[in-house]
Amino acid sequence: MRIALDAMGGDYAPAVNVEGAIETVSDFEDIDIILVGEEPLIKRELDTKKYPHHRIAIKHASQVVKMDESPSVAIRKKRDSSIRKGLELVKDGGADAFVSAGHSGVVMATALLLLRTSHKVDRPAIAAIMPTLKAPVVLIDAGANLYCKPENLLQFALMGNTYCSSILQRSEPKVALLSIGEEDTKGNELTKEAFKLLKQANIHFTGNIDGKDIFTGNADVIVCDGFTGNVVLKTSEGLADAIIKMLKREIVDIAVGRIGYLLMKPALRNFKKKTDYDEYGGAPLLGINGTCIISHGRSTSKAIKNALKVAADFSEKKVYEIIATEIEKSEGEKIAKK
Amino acid sequence: MRIALDAMGGDYAPAVNVEGAIETVSDFEDIDIILVGEEPLIKRELDTKKYPHHRIAIKHASQVVKMDESPSVAIRKKRDSSIRKGLELVKDGGADAFVSAGHSGVVMATALLLLRTSHKVDRPAIAAIMPTLKAPVVLIDAGANLYCKPENLLQFALMGNTYCSSILQRSEPKVALLSIGEEDTKGNELTKEAFKLLKQANIHFTGNIDGKDIFTGNADVIVCDGFTGNVVLKTSEGLADAIIKMLKREIVDIAVGRIGYLLMKPALRNFKKKTDYDEYGGAPLLGINGTCIISHGRSTSKAIKNALKVAADFSEKKVYEIIATEIEKSEGEKIAKK
Repeated sequence: MRIALDAMGGDYAPAVNVEGAIETVSDFEDIDIILVGEEPLIKRELDTKKYPHHRIAIKHASQVVKMDESPSVAIRKKRDSSIRKGLELVKDGGADAFVSAGHSGVVMATALLLLRTSHKVDRPAIAAIMPTLKAPVVLIDAGANLYCKPENLLQFALMGNTYCSSILQRSEPKVALLSIGEEDTKGNELTKEAFKLLKQANIHFTGNIDGKDIFTGNADVIVCDGFTGNVVLKTSEGLADAIIKMLKREIVDIAVGRIGYLLMKPALRNFKKKTDYDEYGGAPLLGINGTCIISHGRSTSKAIKNALKVAADFSEKKVYEIIATEIEKSEGEKIAKK
Repeated sequence: MRIALDAMGGDYAPAVNVEGAIETVSDFEDIDIILVGEEPLIKRELDTKKYPHHRIAIKHASQVVKMDESPSVAIRKKRDSSIRKGLELVKDGGADAFVSAGHSGVVMATALLLLRTSHKVDRPAIAAIMPTLKAPVVLIDAGANLYCKPENLLQFALMGNTYCSSILQRSEPKVALLSIGEEDTKGNELTKEAFKLLKQANIHFTGNIDGKDIFTGNADVIVCDGFTGNVVLKTSEGLADAIIKMLKREIVDIAVGRIGYLLMKPALRNFKKKTDYDEYGGAPLLGINGTCIISHGRSTSKAIKNALKVAADFSEKKVYEIIATEIEKSEGEKIAKK
């Protein structure tokens, strides 16, 4: 298994990317890495470290896409970017998957351009993982599509369902639709129409869910448009950060609390681990012909390693092929019903 | 000051509503209460308690709107509901404001029907308060309008700005637009167009904000459509609940953590208070001719008391009149610019 890693993407690139690659090959025997980006910079990082040389290769790319660049300009003008070169490797069979912590809009658009959507898939979607009181939940779409039709939400549901059963290994995942109330009648035109389609789909659809219930863990997959999904994901991330900060502040404000804090530290560490986005590594872009994982811009080496592991899982289980089959089946059923 | 309180609204009505009313008159000399609802039930609650009889009146209403009723049916068929009777009191001058923890959709629709929007206001909006690392932030619209035009978002910004300066007493509130990234170019058509309008408005507009930054407290007012706002509000509520539960679970899992927990209890209590929705009482429906406060269905007597206090503040400061003036000024400026 060979995974191409964008060595230039993310806030701490290339240092943490190179570190993450080395940690990966040392932890997983079956994953080799191709670091894509400016060769001299990557070499300088690698040279300071010990690693099995035959398992980490470099693919030179002379350009870097900056985080605040316009996707359309970056795609047109940076044909030798680490993002494009990495995805070309996947297209040409030189790599089994691509991982990037760089500009997510550019990664998405380039993946779509080079790998194309699977047969019968209208729009690819980002599937993010969020912690809950029970097992983590898949949120789809977490930001690929700002405008969605009910039919798109149906396809997202099928893709999320496949992710959840293939990778998270849950049988008959419970799929819910994000809205502003649990009743069928609650929501906007998009969710009301999508509700009808999901009810007829070949999945275990449990109805509407509202924001309050995302974290109870009663759903395995939560479906929404990409604008709403992105807002939910970022709001949750921001609130989790804020709560930990507020709590620490409260604790040190009270003298006896400080002793309590020391005694509680292992619990807080465990808690942080559970809510830590680094643990989940990255979010797959589903519905395209190949495996592409988008990581957080603030990725640490641990997050990079986890994203590479996720990429290997997706590629090994051929998730994108299963998704193509599922969507094709569903479209066939729709035609049969007509 | 006389506030009409829906005695039948909320999960624990009428018990906590009556308790909240009694606590209010005992804490605030200038607030008298009219309990609206089924007289025999209210009387039975009141009879078990000591209170100054001349400061709590009853207005009988024979019908109760249930939480899962369709708003259109409830409005048509329940003309003697506690919600309608309470809002009629405001309309006729019998009360200065109305507070309800009942069916928020029915409260909104009835308020709109009886009190109407202020001159030049297109759509009323719900303004909710959320805790942050600094001072609480106003989120508007938190669920009144599922479909919004850019012009609606401009009016929400002006209403939120007035709320923040009049009631929260912050001079020059920082108003931000909720989107999926900070750059001007990030967002959907609605946010991009609204961005242009807010930039020209007579407010301190600080640009786009994404979910991650809601809780930093860098903005005083956050503007969005009602679908997104409702999702953000409920997601935050759900996540805060889940985090406290996860934390408690981690703590009791580790033996020494239990001692730590006892020592930390005062800090946790303070923290809970800061993130507790009860503290903020209720969310005003802004843009109508009168004061109407919508409380959480799970309101405790403390939440009811706080909502009654918020209602009194809004009424005393004539916030709805200031909003009408501000919107009229803004509409005048738009015409002048043309």
